[in-house]
Amino acid sequence: MQRIAIDMDEVIADFAPKHLRLFNRDYKENLTAKDLMGTRLRELRPQLEKEIVAYLEDPAFFRDLEVMKDSQRVIRELSEQYEIFITTAAMEFPTSFNAKYEWLKQHFPFLNEMNFVFCGDKSIIHADYLIDDNARHFQRFKGQGILFTAPHNINETGYHRVNNWLEIREHFLRASEE
Amino acid sequence: MQRIAIDMDEVIADFAPKHLRLFNRDYKENLTAKDLMGTRLRELRPQLEKEIVAYLEDPAFFRDLEVMKDSQRVIRELSEQYEIFITTAAMEFPTSFNAKYEWLKQHFPFLNEMNFVFCGDKSIIHADYLIDDNARHFQRFKGQGILFTAPHNINETGYHRVNNWLEIREHFLRASEE
Repeated sequence: MQRIAIDMDEVIADFAPKHLRLFNRDYKENLTAKDLMGTRLRELRPQLEKEIVAYLEDPAFFRDLEVMKDSQRVIRELSEQYEIFITTAAMEFPTSFNAKYEWLKQHFPFLNEMNFVFCGDKSIIHADYLIDDNARHFQRFKGQGILFTAPHNINETGYHRVNNWLEIREHFLRASEE
Repeated sequence: MQRIAIDMDEVIADFAPKHLRLFNRDYKENLTAKDLMGTRLRELRPQLEKEIVAYLEDPAFFRDLEVMKDSQRVIRELSEQYEIFITTAAMEFPTSFNAKYEWLKQHFPFLNEMNFVFCGDKSIIHADYLIDDNARHFQRFKGQGILFTAPHNINETGYHRVNNWLEIREHFLRASEE
């Protein structure tokens, strides 16, 4: 059985809208997803980098993120034909461990928690595929990297790109239906 | 550069003595490491299994474990010639995430936290070697498993066994000194 490793933030957890909403509220701005095309909030407002990162150090930040559209349904389907692991770079924000674990148990109760991986450097992941919005994780990954579109990676080339979960479904399940 | 993945409990963190001490105190017993040869506390006292496991659900349990003798010195030496990852089955006790992270930062400050991995099923680990006291983790591991002696695994055969950190040093660093 082939194995698919799946990132959390901006792939199954809709990280950016909440971050932007809190930032807009606190700094009286009206930035939208469009402003973040090809960049990141901390690059757009470098003078506020420390404050922008501080939102993510709040242990509660990751607990109530929205689930990415169609991800639950498609991952459940994929899990019938592939071994699914959730692989998140939680070591960057060690305060997020519990919130991320609880979020996964709530929204993906059909996954086995033994298949959750909290790591930093994803080259440690042994899988056939890695679905991630950060192309840097593909550089030393031995399987196939699949880039999940997020505003910040819109100019990234050189990787197989998917724009949403229905495209992932198409990519992995089409063959089995023919 | 070859990569060594290293387990925490009973390999770098001296888990069993604290567990046994708390159990003896609370249940007026005098069990020793010798009583645990080839078995585990919960197998020796199955009627108390729930209580025995409950010690590990205390978020503080993992925070003040003793460091295994020579592990700091040897891992520091190994880290000059190998890529070191710490890979612990933390998903079995999700209350342990923070204590384990803080313990690692305190006792192994020379390691990069990006090389810490909290997982469940260790077949997800991509490394050349895995040093672990639980042989079950070697079954689907693609690299070489190295069994670190613990009372419970004393009858396990079929794996390269090391009894302490000086033997690990010998195994990995001898060649480079000749």
